[in-house]
Amino acid sequence: MKNITELIRNVPDFPIPGIMFKDITPVLNDPVAFDAIINELADRNKDKGIEGIVGIESRGFILGAPLALKMGIPFILIRKEGKLPYHKEKASYDLEYGQATIEIHKDSIKPGQKIMIVDDLLATGGTAVASIDLVERVGGDVVNCSFAIELSALGGRAKLPDGKTDSLIKY
Amino acid sequence: MKNITELIRNVPDFPIPGIMFKDITPVLNDPVAFDAIINELADRNKDKGIEGIVGIESRGFILGAPLALKMGIPFILIRKEGKLPYHKEKASYDLEYGQATIEIHKDSIKPGQKIMIVDDLLATGGTAVASIDLVERVGGDVVNCSFAIELSALGGRAKLPDGKTDSLIKY
Repeated sequence: MKNITELIRNVPDFPIPGIMFKDITPVLNDPVAFDAIINELADRNKDKGIEGIVGIESRGFILGAPLALKMGIPFILIRKEGKLPYHKEKASYDLEYGQATIEIHKDSIKPGQKIMIVDDLLATGGTAVASIDLVERVGGDVVNCSFAIELSALGGRAKLPDGKTDSLIKY
Repeated sequence: MKNITELIRNVPDFPIPGIMFKDITPVLNDPVAFDAIINELADRNKDKGIEGIVGIESRGFILGAPLALKMGIPFILIRKEGKLPYHKEKASYDLEYGQATIEIHKDSIKPGQKIMIVDDLLATGGTAVASIDLVERVGGDVVNCSFAIELSALGGRAKLPDGKTDSLIKY
C-alpha cells in the first residue's frame, strides 16, 4: 500500500482547527490505486464466509459498493438519519467532532447473515461501534470491520470486537 | 432492465407527503442485479472517450465508484457543502423538496477531460444542472449524464444538454 499512502493528501485544520484530514480523493482519481484498494480488501476477506457488505454513508459507499460487486455479495446501506425510506433501526453516537445518528433498513439483512462493515476511516470508532450495533439489531453477524485508513492514536480499534478490525493504512 | 424494475421498491409519501420514493436498496442487495446495472452503464458509454466519472454524493457514489473501476478511469467526487477539504468550487440549486449546495475540488479534473456525471436518479434536474456547471468551471467537458432511474414527469431531461442524458429505467 506504499504508493497509495503517497496519494493520500494531508489537509491541516479540516474540518476544524487541530484536525489533520486524510483526503482520499487523489487515490480515487487514480484508477490503478483505487482498484488496488478494492482488490486488497477482497483478497484479505475472501475466506471468511462473508455474505454481505455494509457501507457507511457516504465515503463507505465508495469502497463498499465496488467491494460487494467484486465479492459477488449483497451491498447494504447504513445512512444518516432521515435518508432511508423504509422500516428501519437507528443509533446515535458521538463523533470526533459533533454527534450523529445513522440508520439501517430492518429487512436489509437476513438472520445470521455474515456481514463485513466497510468505511474509509477508523478514527475514534464511534461510527463503527454504532454500525455494529445496527447490524446486530437487524439480525446480522459482524465478521469483520474493514477500513482504508486507521488513525491509531484515536483509539478506535480498542472499542471494536477483538480480531475483527482490519485497516489497510495505519497512521 | 425488467428484473431490476421489479426490485425497485415504491415507498409512498417519502421524504414528504405526495412523493413516491423509488428505493433502490433491494437492487443493491441483489449482486446480480447491481452488477447488471454497472455493466449496462459501462457498455452504453464505452465508445465515448470518457476519461473520468463524477459521482454525486451520496447515492451517485454507489453507482459511480464501481463504474469508474469497471471503465478503468478516475473517480471524482461532487459532495455536499463542507465535506471536501481542499480548494473547491461550489454551486447552489433548488431541489424537488428544499435547497442544496454542492462542491467539487478544483484540481480533480484536468483541462478538457471528458467527463460522465453519474447519479441514481434524474428528477427535476437541479442537481444535474449544478453538477454540469461545477464540472465545466473546473475545466471538464461533460460528455454524458447517466442515471439509473428517470422520473420523466418532473422534466429534468429538458434542462440538460441535448443528447447527453441517459437513464436505464424511466417512469
